[in-house]
Amino acid sequence: MKTLNVGLIGCGFMGRAHSNAHRKVANFFDLEYQPVLKAICDANAERAAAHAARWGFESVETDYRKLLARKDIDLVDICLPNNLHAEVAIAAAEAGKMILCEKPLARTGDEAEPMVAAVEKAGVPNFVSFNYRRIPAVTLAKQLIDEGRLGRIFHYRAKFLQDWTISKDLPQGGDALWRLDVKAAGSGVTGDLLAHCIDTALWLNGHVASVTAMTETFIKERKHNLTGKVEAVGIDDACAFLARFANGSLATFESTRYARGHKALYTFEINGEHASIAWDLHDLHRLSFFDHRDTGVVRGWRSIHVTDGDHPYMKHWWVPGLSIGFEHSFVHQLADFLNGIATGKPASPTFREGLGTQYVCDAVLKSAATGRWEQVKT
Amino acid sequence: MKTLNVGLIGCGFMGRAHSNAHRKVANFFDLEYQPVLKAICDANAERAAAHAARWGFESVETDYRKLLARKDIDLVDICLPNNLHAEVAIAAAEAGKMILCEKPLARTGDEAEPMVAAVEKAGVPNFVSFNYRRIPAVTLAKQLIDEGRLGRIFHYRAKFLQDWTISKDLPQGGDALWRLDVKAAGSGVTGDLLAHCIDTALWLNGHVASVTAMTETFIKERKHNLTGKVEAVGIDDACAFLARFANGSLATFESTRYARGHKALYTFEINGEHASIAWDLHDLHRLSFFDHRDTGVVRGWRSIHVTDGDHPYMKHWWVPGLSIGFEHSFVHQLADFLNGIATGKPASPTFREGLGTQYVCDAVLKSAATGRWEQVKT
Amino acid sequence: MKTLNVGLIGCGFMGRAHSNAHRKVANFFDLEYQPVLKAICDANAERAAAHAARWGFESVETDYRKLLARKDIDLVDICLPNNLHAEVAIAAAEAGKMILCEKPLARTGDEAEPMVAAVEKAGVPNFVSFNYRRIPAVTLAKQLIDEGRLGRIFHYRAKFLQDWTISKDLPQGGDALWRLDVKAAGSGVTGDLLAHCIDTALWLNGHVASVTAMTETFIKERKHNLTGKVEAVGIDDACAFLARFANGSLATFESTRYARGHKALYTFEINGEHASIAWDLHDLHRLSFFDHRDTGVVRGWRSIHVTDGDHPYMKHWWVPGLSIGFEHSFVHQLADFLNGIATGKPASPTFREGLGTQYVCDAVLKSAATGRWEQVKT
Amino acid sequence: MKTLNVGLIGCGFMGRAHSNAHRKVANFFDLEYQPVLKAICDANAERAAAHAARWGFESVETDYRKLLARKDIDLVDICLPNNLHAEVAIAAAEAGKMILCEKPLARTGDEAEPMVAAVEKAGVPNFVSFNYRRIPAVTLAKQLIDEGRLGRIFHYRAKFLQDWTISKDLPQGGDALWRLDVKAAGSGVTGDLLAHCIDTALWLNGHVASVTAMTETFIKERKHNLTGKVEAVGIDDACAFLARFANGSLATFESTRYARGHKALYTFEINGEHASIAWDLHDLHRLSFFDHRDTGVVRGWRSIHVTDGDHPYMKHWWVPGLSIGFEHSFVHQLADFLNGIATGKPASPTFREGLGTQYVCDAVLKSAATGRWEQVKT
Repeated sequence: MKTLNVGLIGCGFMGRAHSNAHRKVANFFDLEYQPVLKAICDANAERAAAHAARWGFESVETDYRKLLARKDIDLVDICLPNNLHAEVAIAAAEAGKMILCEKPLARTGDEAEPMVAAVEKAGVPNFVSFNYRRIPAVTLAKQLIDEGRLGRIFHYRAKFLQDWTISKDLPQGGDALWRLDVKAAGSGVTGDLLAHCIDTALWLNGHVASVTAMTETFIKERKHNLTGKVEAVGIDDACAFLARFANGSLATFESTRYARGHKALYTFEINGEHASIAWDLHDLHRLSFFDHRDTGVVRGWRSIHVTDGDHPYMKHWWVPGLSIGFEHSFVHQLADFLNGIATGKPASPTFREGLGTQYVCDAVLKSAATGRWEQVKT
Repeated sequence: MKTLNVGLIGCGFMGRAHSNAHRKVANFFDLEYQPVLKAICDANAERAAAHAARWGFESVETDYRKLLARKDIDLVDICLPNNLHAEVAIAAAEAGKMILCEKPLARTGDEAEPMVAAVEKAGVPNFVSFNYRRIPAVTLAKQLIDEGRLGRIFHYRAKFLQDWTISKDLPQGGDALWRLDVKAAGSGVTGDLLAHCIDTALWLNGHVASVTAMTETFIKERKHNLTGKVEAVGIDDACAFLARFANGSLATFESTRYARGHKALYTFEINGEHASIAWDLHDLHRLSFFDHRDTGVVRGWRSIHVTDGDHPYMKHWWVPGLSIGFEHSFVHQLADFLNGIATGKPASPTFREGLGTQYVCDAVLKSAATGRWEQVKT
Repeated sequence: MKTLNVGLIGCGFMGRAHSNAHRKVANFFDLEYQPVLKAICDANAERAAAHAARWGFESVETDYRKLLARKDIDLVDICLPNNLHAEVAIAAAEAGKMILCEKPLARTGDEAEPMVAAVEKAGVPNFVSFNYRRIPAVTLAKQLIDEGRLGRIFHYRAKFLQDWTISKDLPQGGDALWRLDVKAAGSGVTGDLLAHCIDTALWLNGHVASVTAMTETFIKERKHNLTGKVEAVGIDDACAFLARFANGSLATFESTRYARGHKALYTFEINGEHASIAWDLHDLHRLSFFDHRDTGVVRGWRSIHVTDGDHPYMKHWWVPGLSIGFEHSFVHQLADFLNGIATGKPASPTFREGLGTQYVCDAVLKSAATGRWEQVKT
Repeated sequence: MKTLNVGLIGCGFMGRAHSNAHRKVANFFDLEYQPVLKAICDANAERAAAHAARWGFESVETDYRKLLARKDIDLVDICLPNNLHAEVAIAAAEAGKMILCEKPLARTGDEAEPMVAAVEKAGVPNFVSFNYRRIPAVTLAKQLIDEGRLGRIFHYRAKFLQDWTISKDLPQGGDALWRLDVKAAGSGVTGDLLAHCIDTALWLNGHVASVTAMTETFIKERKHNLTGKVEAVGIDDACAFLARFANGSLATFESTRYARGHKALYTFEINGEHASIAWDLHDLHRLSFFDHRDTGVVRGWRSIHVTDGDHPYMKHWWVPGLSIGFEHSFVHQLADFLNGIATGKPASPTFREGLGTQYVCDAVLKSAATGRWEQVKT
């Protein structure tokens, strides 16, 4: 067993999720490389120290450049707002570090392209944290599709619905609310939520050829936490688009933070010639599956409780019937990433694959502006 | 096509349900015998006349004996409170009429035995209206069991939960509330609701050998509508029992009118060696089915939407996906009863079969009194 | 009580549904006008005779012009393929008949406009059979919205998914399959299925201002039942569109006959500032409702079993917990239509209202051709 | 912050679950006492060493007496088969250690009583690991009951259904299958599964006064892993019982390992005068709640997604909508146990409370033998 020294940057929601993954992955997975919590880095020294104490990081940095300069860091894990991904990732690649980067890769394809170039030039392992792929039910969906159980695909539909920004009194910007600040986030639900839907879609159903989209900002102005002033809201509160995949299937995508009653309802459904699949994040341990080849009178949607030992990743956890949750998807992707390093077969999605999602987001936002169908860059 | 003249007795809830069935069965089923709404009979002349006008009965009677004396009546349909079933059915048998009787057959096995004797002596077609057997999803369950899909049966569980008598201010007795009056009803939930559960269970899983039971009357006194006085409540508000079937399977049964949130939640589940089945009346058009012989990773409970043309009874109605409801179970049993007359193969349950349900109810109520396991009479 | 003589044209699936409604409406509703099954009309004499025998129509016609010429016909009920609606309805209006017309009103807005003009000129009661409005759960949704429980509406989404045309071997055209023949149907899922979604949406959420759409025909050629030759398929197998409502809310709509596992899954969801509503046709007796004003820790989607006496239409049927089905929506709309005649307050949707749905369909199909956002005619 | 040195005994399924809890509790909860993984103890030295390596235990013991003799151990965590609980717990109490013991407390009440006496005599903190109490949805149920939202309770029903022992080829006994060996387990589903149901029931609904039960062993003989011979199966494969609570409510309980399609379906429902609650372990993050005091037309069962910051324990985890799983219940009970030590208010259930569950199990098994109602010892 070899150790792999981790320098994690950012102590927010994602910083916690990644710290937890690094700390527990070797308890459940047999790994050639085992992560060591070497250093936590955050511009806010107090926050960094508290995070180190809670999670057991060995050291603290407040400047990411110092972290990158350290010889004892193997892997840089970027858990920063979107606007900082490119700068840090490119510097990390130049410093020869392996890189795990939170999604989306960047704010735009233009911003992401040099990141891809940098990691490929440096030849360092790289990975974008689209964690929902590794929820066992989602991985099972991939497996069923790859086995050909669905046949020709006719339809794909995905949604990511939330309801936490409906109040006009919610401010924008700052540590907790950078997702509402267009400068930090780049976009609203498109980059934050639809990026997840698109990543899964590309993985399960291949290239998206073209899209037509609409976006809306329901609350036009919010107080900004950094300036203290009421400022225009630059992000999209909601976005919906139609798409045509390269394989001839049709799709609808929608995301919003104004869907009362839904907290984090990421859902997708795929209809094929022989079978259909549906899943949602609110009951993430279940996969719905309809197989037309079942005997007629007993055909029906099956609710698969994805907790058996032969389901993806599940033999590493408990016993059948006992579910795992959100945080485990980060453990799974870390295990796969580490195994990718060990085997030399990189885990997906790499930065290059993450760029594909970026291109779809770009086309969506462009279409929302032009009112026309837009081709997706390849 | 031959006609069959119907004399229906009783204008309450069941009188309506049966009138509707007689009136529409030939619109949807091809029948050798087609019912004609010849006469409605109710002690309340005004009520009988209103019912005749609404449903198109050709004549009105207020004395059932006069109805039975009529030569132009072929079939007597008894929709009266339980305490009147025996008297009317025996007289109808003696008058040589075919008989359809609402469930339960009688208040007790002792009361029901002469009814069975009478119809068998007279040799007249006879039938007890346990209508839930003919909800297509329930009939499909029977079909799957008969095909051997479940294998050896380990468990049976059934409930019938309601919540309409929780208020202390609800009176007992009279036309609308005879079900709360022990003299008219014979028992509470046992004869009214568990009788349905038991009928289905005997049909699907065979003889019940022995039971142990408890009953409870939560509201001890209620105003009586007939006397105007507060009187002791004689019925069981709730009843639960354990049972052992002759086939070695174990069962739990429960019914109550004090289960807040459930209006008419009849539900059963059967666990077999290879497969399990579950159903409930609140979503009566669905059958849940789990088949262990499905491929491991895609095993799951299937929700079968029982609306296809190859599902029981459904080719007579609309198109796949479009559901039918409660009232259609009465149409189905009438169609089966009429076909039974035409073919000479009587539809089930006959009076004799209905007596089996009565014997289980008797054992249940006896056990609730003795606190011991009781054998079921055969 | 007055009678109203009905002449029904067309003996297909809808002819049966309407006949059933006419035959049973007065059994369950107290009406000033009671329908009489006076005449059935179908070009196929044998089919017409069989329909008359089964449903009790007093007479048979094979030429709709003869039917319209009869003095004893008050109401003409049009259950014909879409291409025949305009001709028959205009002639009926000119003959001074009341008119019930199956949906969609016509194949296009251009075709429908003279129909509206004709009934308004003649001053005859007129109605388009968008029956799903009168499923009690859908009517309850309307009631909750009208009470202001949702507040400002942000999102509307609707789908109508089927899977019955996936096989390449299915032919097009003729009595049973005119819905696949563009000449008879005018369009595919847009006019057949999305028209329902649009009608409900206009009713619940007001005017649709603009749309952008895509359509697809997955199977390009099918044998034609009338010509016996393989011919190009002219209908849309699938259609999806984005929309902006006049009230500022955003919408997604989708329909297809290639969604494996869904027979007739019409579903809609509305997200408002305070509350959300969702419904689907496969469990038509339930309405999902989320109210943000519920106490925080017990907030959740409520599954309302719409079978209580205080739910729309339900006091006319059975008792709480016992569901009704698809066919009852036709009874409800007929009762409302007849009450509209009695009171002089026409039931909705009239032909003029049905034209609004047509205009949205037109804009959808136009956008699918142009690839641009299209305004909806008003 | 103070440390608390843990000596954990047993490396099986529960040993892993408890190790995980000790290792991560301080990452998510602010604690005065923080556990340190001081020693792992297992009779199998190799297994112990592997467990230590994987989880980071500082030392290894193979004899629990040596562990108890160590001065540097504060807390003994017993994750052994049931037959070893009493011996080890009593010795631990005599050694003055705090004790966490897996459920059930012992094989019988007789065996458990000296354990209670020992911890009470020693005055050491003690706790039985009935972890399902601390699934947030279950804790929320307790909270709603304590707030009086349900009013008078009429009914309680619980089930714990599994299907993993249906095969005749499954052996009994040994490390992996001691639950099938009556000597190690004491009983079958009664002590293993119903004990959970009973613990929750006592907590939520108070004392169980009397029971009547039946048990069954479907497979009478199985090969024994320790002897290599086919031996009689001594455990109950299935158990069902009726109960009367001291508060007047009625209950049904059932457990089996022969319910095809259910892996670990623990489910309970409580019906009160005003409201009802239901929960199940297969969707452990949801609580079903019906409140009769909601406005009539919008009454329905609410599906509460128990993932908000104001739900029990959830502020310590992620953000609304993102679920946790089975393992977190162990973290919660550990946090509560540690806070109990800090505050001097012991977390529930203590050994004495766990004894109450044992008494119910005893009465159940006695009734299954006698066929009579049995009173529960208090």
